[in-house]
Amino acid sequence: MMGVHLGSVVMKLRTTMDPDQASIDSITLFVALLSACILIGHLLERIRWMNESITALAIGLCTGTIILLTTEGKSSHIFMFDEELFFIYLLPPIIFNAGFQVKKKQFFRNFSTIMLFGAFGTLISFGIISLGSAQLFKKLDIGFLETVDFLALGAIFSATDSVCTLQVLNQDETPLLYSLVFGEGVVNDATSVVLFNAIQRFDLSHITSSIAMKLLGDFLYLFTTSTLLGVAVGLLSAYIIKKLYFGSHSTDREVGLMILMAYLSYMMAELFNLSGILTVFFCGIVMSHYTWHNVTESSRVTTRHSFATMSFISETFIFLYVGMDALDIEKWKLVSKSPGTSVGVSSILLVLVLVGRAASILTLSFLSNLAKRLQSEKIGFSQQVTIWWAGLMRGAVSMALAYNQFTRSGHTQLRGNAIMITSTITIVLFSNVVFGLMTKPLIRLLLAPQKHLGSIISSDEKSFILPLLANEQDSEPDPGDGNIPHSTSLHMRLTKPDKTVHSYWRKFDDSVMRPVFGGRGFTPYVPASPREMFVH
Amino acid sequence: MMGVHLGSVVMKLRTTMDPDQASIDSITLFVALLSACILIGHLLERIRWMNESITALAIGLCTGTIILLTTEGKSSHIFMFDEELFFIYLLPPIIFNAGFQVKKKQFFRNFSTIMLFGAFGTLISFGIISLGSAQLFKKLDIGFLETVDFLALGAIFSATDSVCTLQVLNQDETPLLYSLVFGEGVVNDATSVVLFNAIQRFDLSHITSSIAMKLLGDFLYLFTTSTLLGVAVGLLSAYIIKKLYFGSHSTDREVGLMILMAYLSYMMAELFNLSGILTVFFCGIVMSHYTWHNVTESSRVTTRHSFATMSFISETFIFLYVGMDALDIEKWKLVSKSPGTSVGVSSILLVLVLVGRAASILTLSFLSNLAKRLQSEKIGFSQQVTIWWAGLMRGAVSMALAYNQFTRSGHTQLRGNAIMITSTITIVLFSNVVFGLMTKPLIRLLLAPQKHLGSIISSDEKSFILPLLANEQDSEPDPGDGNIPHSTSLHMRLTKPDKTVHSYWRKFDDSVMRPVFGGRGFTPYVPASPREMFVH
Repeated sequence: MMGVHLGSVVMKLRTTMDPDQASIDSITLFVALLSACILIGHLLERIRWMNESITALAIGLCTGTIILLTTEGKSSHIFMFDEELFFIYLLPPIIFNAGFQVKKKQFFRNFSTIMLFGAFGTLISFGIISLGSAQLFKKLDIGFLETVDFLALGAIFSATDSVCTLQVLNQDETPLLYSLVFGEGVVNDATSVVLFNAIQRFDLSHITSSIAMKLLGDFLYLFTTSTLLGVAVGLLSAYIIKKLYFGSHSTDREVGLMILMAYLSYMMAELFNLSGILTVFFCGIVMSHYTWHNVTESSRVTTRHSFATMSFISETFIFLYVGMDALDIEKWKLVSKSPGTSVGVSSILLVLVLVGRAASILTLSFLSNLAKRLQSEKIGFSQQVTIWWAGLMRGAVSMALAYNQFTRSGHTQLRGNAIMITSTITIVLFSNVVFGLMTKPLIRLLLAPQKHLGSIISSDEKSFILPLLANEQDSEPDPGDGNIPHSTSLHMRLTKPDKTVHSYWRKFDDSVMRPVFGGRGFTPYVPASPREMFVH
Repeated sequence: MMGVHLGSVVMKLRTTMDPDQASIDSITLFVALLSACILIGHLLERIRWMNESITALAIGLCTGTIILLTTEGKSSHIFMFDEELFFIYLLPPIIFNAGFQVKKKQFFRNFSTIMLFGAFGTLISFGIISLGSAQLFKKLDIGFLETVDFLALGAIFSATDSVCTLQVLNQDETPLLYSLVFGEGVVNDATSVVLFNAIQRFDLSHITSSIAMKLLGDFLYLFTTSTLLGVAVGLLSAYIIKKLYFGSHSTDREVGLMILMAYLSYMMAELFNLSGILTVFFCGIVMSHYTWHNVTESSRVTTRHSFATMSFISETFIFLYVGMDALDIEKWKLVSKSPGTSVGVSSILLVLVLVGRAASILTLSFLSNLAKRLQSEKIGFSQQVTIWWAGLMRGAVSMALAYNQFTRSGHTQLRGNAIMITSTITIVLFSNVVFGLMTKPLIRLLLAPQKHLGSIISSDEKSFILPLLANEQDSEPDPGDGNIPHSTSLHMRLTKPDKTVHSYWRKFDDSVMRPVFGGRGFTPYVPASPREMFVH
């Protein structure tokens, strides 16, 4: 879907110099910078305020400055920002890995809350930012903007980037919070992209109730079909590997087939104009639940780490790129004639982002808490603040959507469009650097007065070192469940519907799904993960 | 080097339809076909004649036919053949993996023979094909061809593709033969590309002895600097991971850094106009000797298999592509006016390939055998035939070089150029399908009258399943050495110089290199590979 709509702006790795030597130059420089990001990110890891996104952004900014100086102000980046590169090559591994590594039990237990935050929360943010910008921008002297532009702004700035916060949160110490922030991030990505595409497809200059219903129906259709496609491809991969490879396992082919089929699910969703993000996310979940158990031990180790590595490199790539692109001089020239307006627009949007998210999180947490009886399941105020904070950063999805909306008619030549692009860059940089730097201390303050202090500081190391064995947790009782009585009374069913649904699912899974598609317990049992035995 | 020279023909994933939807269509189809290749290749594995290259070629041909029929004869491929895609993205993982997985002891022990076959053998083939085509083509009515075109033909058809044979040979049963065929393949790739580039750089219309000396000097310079660059980057990666990651290993970062630095070595070589193939091959060797031992156990499993998977996918991609491109109607239209000429050219070239390789292998084996005293070290006649056969297939390197040489001035519009392209396609298809299908039975016949029969048939399965633990073999005595007395007498030094050099190297490695760069014995000892323990 995105590729089709967004791809309309064709900016394919256009280099600024001679096409041949230049592309080798660019790739070499970019690969060198990526390596540097990993190295420097590792060296700075012990510093309290830093995280890898900020490191990559900073390296990107520095490189941009150097290129700007050496080319005497002509350009600051190596590649043009390329939506196709982003949506077709960089985003799928990140989202797939998210689905593959997520702790499924936590995710599905909190499914209703995650959907509430991810879908409705994004809609609330979208409404507030769209309406707010439409009202407030009138006073500023910016070029002509249509209704569709304001709606697009709402979608652009509803797309959160919670990578930064997830690096700091600890999946084992605050499982509820982690799964909420994580799950919301994925659903939010999908929602904002679906919203953005819906805005461009319909004539929204005068919204009627029938169009609103159409939009809602469209959203539900997309959500359902995308999910089903992802699940179908995931199950197909499990079935193929279980049936065909039985008795003659080959790690390279298994890994290759898993990568290719995961990517195929994304591309098929794009082909059928569905949401590739949702599809590949659910494909990842199904693959980790079934397929992963049908392959050899070395395939398991390889897939777990190579998917994480691909996602890690893609993320670093994006942040590095955003840092470099921020200094692109062409856009700033147009804006520099009226610096006040630009600052005004950025400030208004930033305030709207803060307010919009606060409104959605506080309201929805209140609603969510109403439905829960047990105090331990309610979302406390400090947790609400953490969730709010986690979604304040804006990242590559916002950038890609903004480029798509505001560079379509030519090349940011319109003043209004140029201001929107530079404001997006400003907000992405500001939110990542300023909010990002405050994340570690803030979360330390909010979540761990005494006991979690040490472990939270080192949690970003752990997030790489600890095995994210989503799969191994599946049939083990969660440590956090100890104090909740397991009963199947009517009362429990009413107050904890997720849990009961979960137990039905478990029965169905054990009796129908696993015998067909494999999975834990239906493939030769492996006593321990090799990393647990051999890690030094 | 290649990227610069070859990249001059810019054919960047140009699609034949609407640029946006088309690129999603193409990628989806291609990914689906790749998955199909893995699946069908696995299903056909038990059939005596098949191998995965032929499967991919066949699927490519079928898809090409279907596309040709559905587009009513307009086009048969999804992508244009793209040298940048080939040389910048597909080739590096294949060559790097070759270096990473090679059994280093065997490789270095036979280093002189490998260099003899790879460098001089390629030169002999080059000479025979160039001279032969220049003489024989005179009688045929093809368009005007310059001296440089005949020389280019020599280089194009000296580039062998031994993947097919390596799938059939067994590294454990015939270690000498495997290392010769394998090593020759790599050196041959490098030599033919270096030759091809040298031809284009110099004015070779009249070759003088000074130009010949210059060419030789150029070749030696390229060979040395490329090797040194690869070794340097490999050692740097070992040093960085040993020093910086000590005590806080993170698998994702280690794997990421290894992939990025390996790719960086290739791109740097291209940037400095060196041979990226040689650089990344030696980078792979150094990484498997030092870096691989400095990382965690899960990183080791992950790198070993993910590099192999990347290489496997790239190879399948190339064969699939070549199959699809073969039916490109445009080229055949020009040629179809004179089918006789086209068949004549293809036949002549095919005969020259057969003769050229026979001449070089038989001569050089004779020379190599003269230098060896022990009967067991000499290359027997059936082994010579196997080596000869292994290098008869022509693959993607030939295709890429041919496209570069004969599509430069426009679009194969000249008749001579069109004939050269179609002849290359014919030879690649013919040699892979006909010779490829005969490889398994032939090698069975030549090498294993009784005892090896069973194991050779299943060797292509084994090549994936057996751990290619090049690294673990290093300090263990090779099982094949048992009957050769270990003595350091002068006689031994004269007759077995490789071996003595090897023992000096071992001392140097243990006392200087490993303490600095890590490696086996200088990192915590891991009792067993997890795949050996857990594989079912």
